[in-house]
Amino acid sequence: MAATISGILTPHMVPLDAHDRIHEAELRRYVDWLIARGVHGLYPNGSTGEFIRFTADERRQIVRIVCEQAAGRVPVLAGAAEANVRETLAACEAYAQYGARAVAIVSPYYYRLGPESVYAYFREIALASPIDVTLYNIPMFASPIDVPTIQRLAELDRIVGIKDSSGDVAFMMRLMAAVRPARPDFSFLTGWEAVLVPMLLIGVDGGTHATSGVVPELTRRMFDLARARELDLAVSLQYRLLELFDAMLGAAEFPEGFRAAVELRGFAMGRGRQPLSAAQQSHRERLQKILRCLMADFGYVDPPPEGCPLRRPDPATPHVDTMADAVVEALRQQGVL
Amino acid sequence: MAATISGILTPHMVPLDAHDRIHEAELRRYVDWLIARGVHGLYPNGSTGEFIRFTADERRQIVRIVCEQAAGRVPVLAGAAEANVRETLAACEAYAQYGARAVAIVSPYYYRLGPESVYAYFREIALASPIDVTLYNIPMFASPIDVPTIQRLAELDRIVGIKDSSGDVAFMMRLMAAVRPARPDFSFLTGWEAVLVPMLLIGVDGGTHATSGVVPELTRRMFDLARARELDLAVSLQYRLLELFDAMLGAAEFPEGFRAAVELRGFAMGRGRQPLSAAQQSHRERLQKILRCLMADFGYVDPPPEGCPLRRPDPATPHVDTMADAVVEALRQQGVL
Amino acid sequence: MAATISGILTPHMVPLDAHDRIHEAELRRYVDWLIARGVHGLYPNGSTGEFIRFTADERRQIVRIVCEQAAGRVPVLAGAAEANVRETLAACEAYAQYGARAVAIVSPYYYRLGPESVYAYFREIALASPIDVTLYNIPMFASPIDVPTIQRLAELDRIVGIKDSSGDVAFMMRLMAAVRPARPDFSFLTGWEAVLVPMLLIGVDGGTHATSGVVPELTRRMFDLARARELDLAVSLQYRLLELFDAMLGAAEFPEGFRAAVELRGFAMGRGRQPLSAAQQSHRERLQKILRCLMADFGYVDPPPEGCPLRRPDPATPHVDTMADAVVEALRQQGVL
Amino acid sequence: MAATISGILTPHMVPLDAHDRIHEAELRRYVDWLIARGVHGLYPNGSTGEFIRFTADERRQIVRIVCEQAAGRVPVLAGAAEANVRETLAACEAYAQYGARAVAIVSPYYYRLGPESVYAYFREIALASPIDVTLYNIPMFASPIDVPTIQRLAELDRIVGIKDSSGDVAFMMRLMAAVRPARPDFSFLTGWEAVLVPMLLIGVDGGTHATSGVVPELTRRMFDLARARELDLAVSLQYRLLELFDAMLGAAEFPEGFRAAVELRGFAMGRGRQPLSAAQQSHRERLQKILRCLMADFGYVDPPPEGCPLRRPDPATPHVDTMADAVVEALRQQGVL
Repeated sequence: MAATISGILTPHMVPLDAHDRIHEAELRRYVDWLIARGVHGLYPNGSTGEFIRFTADERRQIVRIVCEQAAGRVPVLAGAAEANVRETLAACEAYAQYGARAVAIVSPYYYRLGPESVYAYFREIALASPIDVTLYNIPMFASPIDVPTIQRLAELDRIVGIKDSSGDVAFMMRLMAAVRPARPDFSFLTGWEAVLVPMLLIGVDGGTHATSGVVPELTRRMFDLARARELDLAVSLQYRLLELFDAMLGAAEFPEGFRAAVELRGFAMGRGRQPLSAAQQSHRERLQKILRCLMADFGYVDPPPEGCPLRRPDPATPHVDTMADAVVEALRQQGVL
Repeated sequence: MAATISGILTPHMVPLDAHDRIHEAELRRYVDWLIARGVHGLYPNGSTGEFIRFTADERRQIVRIVCEQAAGRVPVLAGAAEANVRETLAACEAYAQYGARAVAIVSPYYYRLGPESVYAYFREIALASPIDVTLYNIPMFASPIDVPTIQRLAELDRIVGIKDSSGDVAFMMRLMAAVRPARPDFSFLTGWEAVLVPMLLIGVDGGTHATSGVVPELTRRMFDLARARELDLAVSLQYRLLELFDAMLGAAEFPEGFRAAVELRGFAMGRGRQPLSAAQQSHRERLQKILRCLMADFGYVDPPPEGCPLRRPDPATPHVDTMADAVVEALRQQGVL
Repeated sequence: MAATISGILTPHMVPLDAHDRIHEAELRRYVDWLIARGVHGLYPNGSTGEFIRFTADERRQIVRIVCEQAAGRVPVLAGAAEANVRETLAACEAYAQYGARAVAIVSPYYYRLGPESVYAYFREIALASPIDVTLYNIPMFASPIDVPTIQRLAELDRIVGIKDSSGDVAFMMRLMAAVRPARPDFSFLTGWEAVLVPMLLIGVDGGTHATSGVVPELTRRMFDLARARELDLAVSLQYRLLELFDAMLGAAEFPEGFRAAVELRGFAMGRGRQPLSAAQQSHRERLQKILRCLMADFGYVDPPPEGCPLRRPDPATPHVDTMADAVVEALRQQGVL
Repeated sequence: MAATISGILTPHMVPLDAHDRIHEAELRRYVDWLIARGVHGLYPNGSTGEFIRFTADERRQIVRIVCEQAAGRVPVLAGAAEANVRETLAACEAYAQYGARAVAIVSPYYYRLGPESVYAYFREIALASPIDVTLYNIPMFASPIDVPTIQRLAELDRIVGIKDSSGDVAFMMRLMAAVRPARPDFSFLTGWEAVLVPMLLIGVDGGTHATSGVVPELTRRMFDLARARELDLAVSLQYRLLELFDAMLGAAEFPEGFRAAVELRGFAMGRGRQPLSAAQQSHRERLQKILRCLMADFGYVDPPPEGCPLRRPDPATPHVDTMADAVVEALRQQGVL
């Protein structure tokens, strides 16, 4: 049985206009652009989408726009966490009507709840939700969801998958080993693109990656290569993705570096909702120059007039003497190098 | 110059009715009860008040009710953190109109922001707020606010104090040493009642304690004893407060144990918004029996029909041989033992 | 240029006799057994070898015995950390004379030192050591060694590699990307077998794994499969290794579970130096029954007379519909299933 | 019943000579100096004494010298943790013969052991030790010892106290509440001088503080003031101690700042065993200028020729309007200001 949800789903950012409002036209254009570049799905109201910096009304508006614009071309996994179970269920109902494929619900945050409470929370939602639910585990920001709790929650039909942003490859293996025997349809999505290819190697169904909102061509290609078991080439791209990812993480604060990067792809993102200091603003501008070079290496954007430094050799493969040349040649033929 | 805000301010809980709505009549009755028992101020929309589990509209309703009911008898410090700066400022304006003395704004949560971003966030609020602002540092739940950042923020007149819930006595000393020379009016409030008396000893202006919503007589008494430098008696009460505090923390999840305790004082709190499992519900009931005994020891409630275990001797003072008897006698005379 | 040190090096345990002394004969037999089962090298005085629970004299005795017994058949990487730089250098000299290929030096522990101090410590050792040095990063037990520090230390010729036990795949990628361009001979060894195959996929040179002291056949096979890019089969074995690893970690305390497991392979390990409570001793016995079944599945030991539960299906591959049967078949042909 | 061990015990540093050996004459002179300035006891082989950077033989030598030199004038609490239980017991025997009052044994470090193992470890030692044992809890460096474990260990007569360096005032209160009813003789010593006065207020028996090796007059005075319940003056000194403590902590790495400070008191400490980078060495020299000013304020050393900046007002008491002048006056009369 295939996983319910698979592939690369983009937790997209939200363009803002000059009045700090959702820039609907730009958001629609962004959705079209992402779909055209091969993302398998869209994920509004994720952490990258700064769900917590929008009001409840704005979060609904975002999902409505995205569902309308996607228009069934790709599935929408809508972030639906609200202030409490009742409000969350109301959002679930709205998103079901908008046509979302499923909702993603982050574990309770602010308070750090224990496993028993995390279970009780998701259970109450799952029993009443009119739409499929995926769990969202992001222990650096929200109450962790441990393996036994996920195993218990997977007994509920409405819960069809988990997005895990821990980046812990062994944790994901433990999770799949615990859940898949009883739920072969359960979706395992990683949220940590720094290890996307290793995660695909060990068998996850896909990922929801901030980076896929910036270089959707690249994450899609890595997914396809991994599925086709062209792992050496996929690993080479993983190293380059990591370099880009780390550069974007190095901005003032997440996800500002990703907003700075997507501007280079031609979208007007507006001033972010978390204020930047003058020093941070200045750093953001320097960062954009680095990001431009990293993305120009792939051919996604034009290099800056002043040019870029030469790339370093590929770190993954110096010891694989018999293989290195072939990999480089393959990369060249495919226009990656 | 005296601190702008001082004394014990209660971060009160919010009673809910059978329909999971704010129980306005009970909330008003609770406000009156707290004021009658000597709290120096009220603090709606704190962590104890589960601000994050209410909608933006409900948070306004709560502050409006509390300001109306307090009617100037005690100052109101209103939790005003909303989804972003603009929404927070709108809440600040509303709470100013309701008559709040100041707002308290928790450091950005979910994302863990660094000092530069925390500064930029509070600065933008402080420059536009129509009402005095106190910072709220609670590093276990939200982005930490470090000493240099607080020192920089204290340069802004609108920022008049800080509530710190770290419970770190040395941190509070460092903070006061850094800020007070330039801002003698700045208020230092501790949010960790486990060390209320030590904090008062080292010079804080007061505290905002969940426990003061359960046993307001006790926290007020400890504050008065510490101010009068009757520290040995204050310490004896501190040990007993700690025992009660730990018992309430031992419930399913914060602040459910405090909700269970205030029910014993005669308030109908309703079912909490974080679902409880059957095991947690059962544990809550057993906990209430322990809480009843702990509070009966103070005479705040009647003991259960089956009676309570004997109290242990006072742990603070076994070695102070010459002082122990006097303390016990003083406590007896005051009806505490 | 090839890495200086590569393959699976075993951080072996040390058998003790009835008088709590090193059981030299059993240690020699164990060394022979490991070499016969294909380990690429031996690593005395690692964390698994409980270096910290032996005296300085015993640590030398262990390295001497292992070097003598290995007799050049496989290289020895000898843990050489002592109380201070002078003592560590004396150990380096001794181990060079015993014939060790290199030493491994754990980052300073107990105190948590910052990067500048970690650098100064290793630099002073590297400049005076008569033998090649590998760094040992194990942030859960010792001061972390960050990427820039490793990059600086890699400028010193004497430092030829790093063992990293963080288990963080992205960290290892960042490290290789930073160091390999200037030092293609630098060895990157992972110490976290829970992700051995993903680590090999992204290009590490090998690993030093406690598990290789228990099932050396398995870790060797995984290494060979990964090198031959038979990754699907390697991943299947990775899931089974993880199950065994987690079971051994579940014992009283690390590395007691590994000691319990190697007893099942026929070695008399003696009573460990960390005392066990009665409950822990009883748990250890129950654990051995589970470990026996896990290892009997591989054919390494006989199953217990009462039999074992059936194995679950392979968690890595439920979605790879076209591939699952082939993998299972391949596993069967190779006697793994 | 009085506590077995009380007062301020100094975890002293160890002077080294030009050959990196223990400088015995200077150590003896230092011991005399400490006793003359009022420390209640001596504590060789503590964390401040860098026990881990000395060999087992050196640790014995240190205890022998200190016991000889103290010659019964003050009790010696000797750090006795060695590689394993057998070695630790051998040290206990030696230290008993040297005349130590008791040994202090740090919880197992490097590995982070759980409560059951920590209990088993201390129990085995306590049952065989010929000398009284104090537990040493320092969770930032070693396996934490939690309240229930301490309570169980306090059932063993040989265990007579605990040194806790967590600095958590509430933890210490919980601990005393749990243990004192059954063991009124049990000693509670805090190792975190940043909160010495608050700790004394809540009833600890004393402390073992690195700072007491630098300004023994000050820690003794604070102890005496707290015992005499002159708490406001004690708190004023606490703020100044904190400033000095933080400055010393700000050095390259603990305890290098304390070594730099004690040199200003006239002792030749020698080059430390943890190497310093050039930048750290330079920082150490700048630090000494600050430390000289902080200690000159107390009159313990002469100010530098170029003078020192003016002191800030006392941060503890700006709001205690009626009390501030009196405190300042009292401080002046006692020569502190």
